[in-house]
Amino acid sequence: MAKLEDIVSLCKRRGFIFQGSDIYGGMAGTWDFGPLGVMLKKKIMDEWWNYFVDSRNNIYGVDAAILMNPRTWQASGHLETFADPLVECKECKSRFRADKIAEGITESVTTEEFLATHTKCPVCGKENWGEIRKFNMMFSTHVGAVLPEDSETNPELAAKNTAYLRPETAQGIFTNYKNVVDTIYPDIPFGIAQVGKAFRNEISPRDFILRDRECSQMEIEYFVRPDAWENEFEKVYKAFDNFLESRMGLDLGNINHLEVAPEDRAHYSKRTVDFMFNYPNGEEELMGLAYRTDFDLQNIQRESGKSMEYRDKNTGETFVPHVIEPSIGVERLFLAVLSTAYTEDEIDGNTRIVLRLPEHLAPYRFCVSPLLKNRPELVEKAKEVYNKLREKYTYVTWDDSGNIGKRYRKQDEIGTPKCIVIDFDTLEDNAVTIRDRDTTEQTRVNIEKL
Amino acid sequence: MAKLEDIVSLCKRRGFIFQGSDIYGGMAGTWDFGPLGVMLKKKIMDEWWNYFVDSRNNIYGVDAAILMNPRTWQASGHLETFADPLVECKECKSRFRADKIAEGITESVTTEEFLATHTKCPVCGKENWGEIRKFNMMFSTHVGAVLPEDSETNPELAAKNTAYLRPETAQGIFTNYKNVVDTIYPDIPFGIAQVGKAFRNEISPRDFILRDRECSQMEIEYFVRPDAWENEFEKVYKAFDNFLESRMGLDLGNINHLEVAPEDRAHYSKRTVDFMFNYPNGEEELMGLAYRTDFDLQNIQRESGKSMEYRDKNTGETFVPHVIEPSIGVERLFLAVLSTAYTEDEIDGNTRIVLRLPEHLAPYRFCVSPLLKNRPELVEKAKEVYNKLREKYTYVTWDDSGNIGKRYRKQDEIGTPKCIVIDFDTLEDNAVTIRDRDTTEQTRVNIEKL
Repeated sequence: MAKLEDIVSLCKRRGFIFQGSDIYGGMAGTWDFGPLGVMLKKKIMDEWWNYFVDSRNNIYGVDAAILMNPRTWQASGHLETFADPLVECKECKSRFRADKIAEGITESVTTEEFLATHTKCPVCGKENWGEIRKFNMMFSTHVGAVLPEDSETNPELAAKNTAYLRPETAQGIFTNYKNVVDTIYPDIPFGIAQVGKAFRNEISPRDFILRDRECSQMEIEYFVRPDAWENEFEKVYKAFDNFLESRMGLDLGNINHLEVAPEDRAHYSKRTVDFMFNYPNGEEELMGLAYRTDFDLQNIQRESGKSMEYRDKNTGETFVPHVIEPSIGVERLFLAVLSTAYTEDEIDGNTRIVLRLPEHLAPYRFCVSPLLKNRPELVEKAKEVYNKLREKYTYVTWDDSGNIGKRYRKQDEIGTPKCIVIDFDTLEDNAVTIRDRDTTEQTRVNIEKL
Repeated sequence: MAKLEDIVSLCKRRGFIFQGSDIYGGMAGTWDFGPLGVMLKKKIMDEWWNYFVDSRNNIYGVDAAILMNPRTWQASGHLETFADPLVECKECKSRFRADKIAEGITESVTTEEFLATHTKCPVCGKENWGEIRKFNMMFSTHVGAVLPEDSETNPELAAKNTAYLRPETAQGIFTNYKNVVDTIYPDIPFGIAQVGKAFRNEISPRDFILRDRECSQMEIEYFVRPDAWENEFEKVYKAFDNFLESRMGLDLGNINHLEVAPEDRAHYSKRTVDFMFNYPNGEEELMGLAYRTDFDLQNIQRESGKSMEYRDKNTGETFVPHVIEPSIGVERLFLAVLSTAYTEDEIDGNTRIVLRLPEHLAPYRFCVSPLLKNRPELVEKAKEVYNKLREKYTYVTWDDSGNIGKRYRKQDEIGTPKCIVIDFDTLEDNAVTIRDRDTTEQTRVNIEKL
């Protein structure tokens, strides 16, 4: 399998992904998608939306604001528990996530436990630590007319107007559950889907786009009858395997379906499956599938004082639905797709890099080239073919730079399945050379048959 | 024309747009898109992307992070000037945007000028004001291991780690200009496009989704030769008129193309046209089209120390490109589309509300219904038609609630162009009734011909 650094390098070289704010020396934990990255990311997101929302008649979309009323995070428990253990070196003032610099401790480590590990500061090498403090990973801000100096001069006002960037899209779904039921009144089971940004202030962002501070999530909350969850869980499970394989081109052999043990699950969940993907830098979570019972709706019911009950149109029963939540990070899926596609092979004694992306995900489906760029008759004919293909397939690129060999190498690297070359024979026989990305085989095809 | 409150009410009733965090009493200046709103919004955004990016071969997409290196806002001037005049009533401590509560003053009002207006506090009625203070509209946060108490105990650390939610998507484009040139090296003129969230901490958000704190922007920076700007400006101008009319169904008669006077333009711009739309609550900016010279690239060049020069492949000349920027807010466009479509008319003596959306923008293209829901033979036949249409058109809804009249009223309100009803005759002649949203005319059509 490819090394992560090779993928990072390809992403930068070909315009898939750049370090965020690169021009100013970067912004840790943020990434900018370039022209090809946007194309691939958009196709991945569109496939997901098509597969889970548009192709079904019981899943509805919402698009909630990133800034939510802070009571959301009170009810969900994020204000209390969405925190990492932070420790400061009293010598050099560097700060670390305690469980990342010491061996054998967990996120809920105490100061005593940490000190007992006798960890030395990774920066200055001393061992002089402060207390372990809970560092909430939600980014906070002030909404409304709060001035910077108010934090000191008017802390009450500042506190009252504190809000957070949502750390997950899920709560934007749960808080709209009642809106959807009231306006659509769908039969149960039904789902609500959302794609959008989420923010986590990681103390040490790392692993390229896997552990970033700003990511996009695609989440569905699937509302079911309390007694139907096991059956529905299986169906969602199968649908995601099918999606990952048929739409994303992933090899299920690269996914470890990890049944999370009871002691590692959230207390309310009776079943959670983590889809662990075999990334170049090791196994990491690609997505999570969790049975969340009625935990979230009960929290909202309590905090808001509004009933979250659903009334079954057929039986007349009322109950708070239970929830199955498949949650996937766009960047994690993007990297899984890229690592699956990334291949180095040997062609005529030369190593080449090729992205074997599924045809429907490749940024461009075709590349059209004139054999030589300084022969107007070739260029004209090639433009004709290019324009015709663009009308039908949209995602067609033009390349007349360098020589043909160089162009092939470039198109291989960005995953273009077919390169079409217009040469002098084309002017005679109206046929073009089609070169296949994966086999590198070349065939002659009449233009009319493209 | 419709009243804004009627549109707001329809949006809530039918699941287009809800107040953000509604369940917790709201979050001022935020809005959540419901199932139908997401469908319409997605179609609007997809049309824009298709028209300006996918259908052209010289406009490239980027998708930059919302959290950017703060030097971005230093260079762009936002840290210095992106501010509103804030004034506090010393009696009741209420805060206001000075230029919104007093007559005849501008954003750059001084304390003296404001006091001279003898404005009374809109809350307590007294006239006892503090100084005018500049309130920067960027939301600020801390990135990295900064604890809440650091603002007091370690202000240097807090300041060093302060970052902002981007107030516009444009700077995410400019900061990626060099990345795009280095990886794609496109011929000039070329454009870079981005769709994404932007945040503005409005002191008083208002006018529904027109002046919200969180919005989505669709922006293009179009890079041209310095001597070609006038010609390119005209082309972009025409393209947007064409897009708004042909793709969005807007009436250009509702748009006032306002040539911004020299004294109202940014100092560097030689031409700016504001597209003012005749919204239900008055004329408001729908989009802006500005010639920005090389102002932004020069700022970035100075701040970053990196050259923003472009080398023309054909002539060998090097220069910093000039920029034409069409910038449109998704929510503003959404509301323009809705207000254009919203109509009340009279059918057989009854008033009805109908959304005359262009067919390709309507959330659903068809609604399929059995005449009666308790007749299995009708339901079965209707399901057959429904499934067949969904395969081809995707956006097809099912409605068997209430009586036919009620269903028509509902589908009119959400803009469904055609309602298809399966009745007892269908079982005999294999034909269905198609009812047209705009004319309410009903025709019989054979199922095979749908």
